[in-house]
Amino acid sequence: MSLTVTDLTNQLIASYAKVGGINHLDGKNLPSKSRIGTVTSELLRLLFPGFFDEHVIHSSELKVEIAMLMDDVCDRLENEIYRGLEYAPPEGVAKKDLSKLARKLTLDFLGRLPHVRDLLRTDVEAAFRGDPAALSNEEVIVAYPFVEAIAVQRLAHELYKDKVPLIPRIMTEWAHSRTGMDLHPGAKIGTNFFIDHGTGAVIGETSVIGNNVKMYQGVGLVARSLSGGQALKGQKRHPTIEDRVTIYANATIVGGDTTVGAGSTIGASVFLTQSVPPNSLVTYENVDVKVTAKRDKTATDFQI
Amino acid sequence: MSLTVTDLTNQLIASYAKVGGINHLDGKNLPSKSRIGTVTSELLRLLFPGFFDEHVIHSSELKVEIAMLMDDVCDRLENEIYRGLEYAPPEGVAKKDLSKLARKLTLDFLGRLPHVRDLLRTDVEAAFRGDPAALSNEEVIVAYPFVEAIAVQRLAHELYKDKVPLIPRIMTEWAHSRTGMDLHPGAKIGTNFFIDHGTGAVIGETSVIGNNVKMYQGVGLVARSLSGGQALKGQKRHPTIEDRVTIYANATIVGGDTTVGAGSTIGASVFLTQSVPPNSLVTYENVDVKVTAKRDKTATDFQI
Amino acid sequence: MSLTVTDLTNQLIASYAKVGGINHLDGKNLPSKSRIGTVTSELLRLLFPGFFDEHVIHSSELKVEIAMLMDDVCDRLENEIYRGLEYAPPEGVAKKDLSKLARKLTLDFLGRLPHVRDLLRTDVEAAFRGDPAALSNEEVIVAYPFVEAIAVQRLAHELYKDKVPLIPRIMTEWAHSRTGMDLHPGAKIGTNFFIDHGTGAVIGETSVIGNNVKMYQGVGLVARSLSGGQALKGQKRHPTIEDRVTIYANATIVGGDTTVGAGSTIGASVFLTQSVPPNSLVTYENVDVKVTAKRDKTATDFQI
Repeated sequence: MSLTVTDLTNQLIASYAKVGGINHLDGKNLPSKSRIGTVTSELLRLLFPGFFDEHVIHSSELKVEIAMLMDDVCDRLENEIYRGLEYAPPEGVAKKDLSKLARKLTLDFLGRLPHVRDLLRTDVEAAFRGDPAALSNEEVIVAYPFVEAIAVQRLAHELYKDKVPLIPRIMTEWAHSRTGMDLHPGAKIGTNFFIDHGTGAVIGETSVIGNNVKMYQGVGLVARSLSGGQALKGQKRHPTIEDRVTIYANATIVGGDTTVGAGSTIGASVFLTQSVPPNSLVTYENVDVKVTAKRDKTATDFQI
Repeated sequence: MSLTVTDLTNQLIASYAKVGGINHLDGKNLPSKSRIGTVTSELLRLLFPGFFDEHVIHSSELKVEIAMLMDDVCDRLENEIYRGLEYAPPEGVAKKDLSKLARKLTLDFLGRLPHVRDLLRTDVEAAFRGDPAALSNEEVIVAYPFVEAIAVQRLAHELYKDKVPLIPRIMTEWAHSRTGMDLHPGAKIGTNFFIDHGTGAVIGETSVIGNNVKMYQGVGLVARSLSGGQALKGQKRHPTIEDRVTIYANATIVGGDTTVGAGSTIGASVFLTQSVPPNSLVTYENVDVKVTAKRDKTATDFQI
Repeated sequence: MSLTVTDLTNQLIASYAKVGGINHLDGKNLPSKSRIGTVTSELLRLLFPGFFDEHVIHSSELKVEIAMLMDDVCDRLENEIYRGLEYAPPEGVAKKDLSKLARKLTLDFLGRLPHVRDLLRTDVEAAFRGDPAALSNEEVIVAYPFVEAIAVQRLAHELYKDKVPLIPRIMTEWAHSRTGMDLHPGAKIGTNFFIDHGTGAVIGETSVIGNNVKMYQGVGLVARSLSGGQALKGQKRHPTIEDRVTIYANATIVGGDTTVGAGSTIGASVFLTQSVPPNSLVTYENVDVKVTAKRDKTATDFQI
């Protein structure tokens, strides 16, 4: 005989009592993905005025429009930052001071939007210059998922530097879901950055990237998978990529001591676990493509 | 002269009559992606209480809250399962018995939510332990797309085992769209599973995965592409991965007879078409990275 | 002392004045991603009648339903195309003639929906035949992200051929965000096309693809990254793939002169920069997988 809905409810509640670690009851409200998605969308409208608004913004109304939007963003973000601080209060800060701290962190962050715009302008230009399929800066901003991914990373990076808990990662995962690019808020990324196509690109937490670096879809700057796990927290685990490096699709570069020297090119699907000097061309040794007529005997094992 | 809207309508309706196979007229209503998305979101709230709700859930109200949600999920899911059964009725079941069967399948499935929670707790712990960038189980659940992808796969797998038509695949494709991970509901996946970053990961229908397996973005457990096509339905076409295997980014493992032995490590971008024994380290033979100063003559053919 | 919201607003407005190239003020309204998303969803309902509607469509009401939907699509699309033309007016067309042109382009495009359906029927059949996990054409249409990606590309390609500015790329990027497949509207794609799993697949603007081609997730048909950049606009920069080619996961094929001959197979993760004749099997030379017991001394450098 099947169970009733009441039986099912009781069973599940018993499981909440028995299986810990994946419940969040009686706690403080956590920051929410959907609310952080809303505030991040509004931040993008502040960064690229007129691009993501439903109506034309005229200069004459600009001040009023932006003041209203800024006010709204400020309230919403402060609210989420407060939830983050409540979840993981910084050492030495009393509970009663958390709301003041949330206010300060929010205002400091919003004061850095012009700085983020300075960086993003160089990224948009790099995307336009690097892609013959692009018609104009406008098309790049309206259509390219990379612009959204890097804008959110650069915003989240500012909050990460201020040690705001949870929010930076939720912001970049919101963008990850929309763009397929997993750019950790901790990564330090120079100017004129561009990831073409972008889906599957991964930039780990302690990566350091110079200026004028170009990457393609599926490129990973990742950590070794060691038994260390959580013990490695805080250590540099991801590569350093110097200026003017190009990394082709699906290459994987591993490890915190790995540095790719300035001006180098890394071929597609390369798995690089060691440093290379400036101006290197990195590909596989003794690897040229093998072209076999399909009836050739030696090719049997490749009959895929 | 351009056509009128009426002309355009008539033309298109003529095409519906002429080109079959991609129309669905006068039929039964199919299960819908958007409705299944709604019910899957609610199932995630049942699995991880308090994490995806807009307000704090207190233990005192827990029973009432969960009972209401369970009731709603039960109705919605039963409705979709009924549509699925109507589309593809199981052999030997009379049309008049379909709604009773839909009810039974729904209740049986919801009775297994505690079992799914048991498995998911091990996945969340594997993610937390394996990723030094993770701050806590809470961050993993709130932010990591992997948690959503594996939760939906484990739910869909239960419906798949009961041969519910269409719904399991629509559920995992809903998650695929949101997370970039294509985890087929048919795959058998052990405990403590983790896919880091995740975008582009593919686990095919007949894959079998042991305990404590870790994968990265872009890893594919796929089938050979043979002329067989539909004739291969039901056969084991995807690999077996034993316990404690690590598979780095963008590696592709192919074929139903391919087994990766326990404790093995597969390097990034490897294309593996044969079995390997336990504790293997699999990478390319004679393949070290080739580092060439860019002016070197021998590098000309790589001037990419 | 922290800044006030008024200070923050003034700062940001000063940045709008100082940092150009990423503002869009006082201009014409650009086509919008969200509005184009809406019209694209409606176009999918016209292409696959009954599959994405919330209620059953009966033949008796078909004409009325489709006429209403066609009317709505026509208005919305004409509106967006007008914005696109206003942004980048075609040479020799007076401003006062833009709205007539927008109307004409819209009607011409909608007149080609039956042609797009002819092509899509072959894609759905290729997906069904090629994937033993597929139960039926219906499941393929309802669940597979590939169907959405290729339908949107084929629609956008018609607008691209008519040189409609911005809209085609915004349409394919809308689908890219939902499916992980980046299929440029410029690419010429033959019949019976299928990309299995699909996440991370990239098909560049000047690619040419024959009939009965099958690709997997992460495959890229891309351009060389040359200092040329924008100077290369309009040149053929992406590969040609002839009939009956299969390309396994994460392979990257580069360059406008690169042709993969009919009937060839390209292995996973191959980086191909040169043409290959018909019926080739392409994989790496001297590359077999290396299987090392993990304690083996020679494997030390791979202790990843």
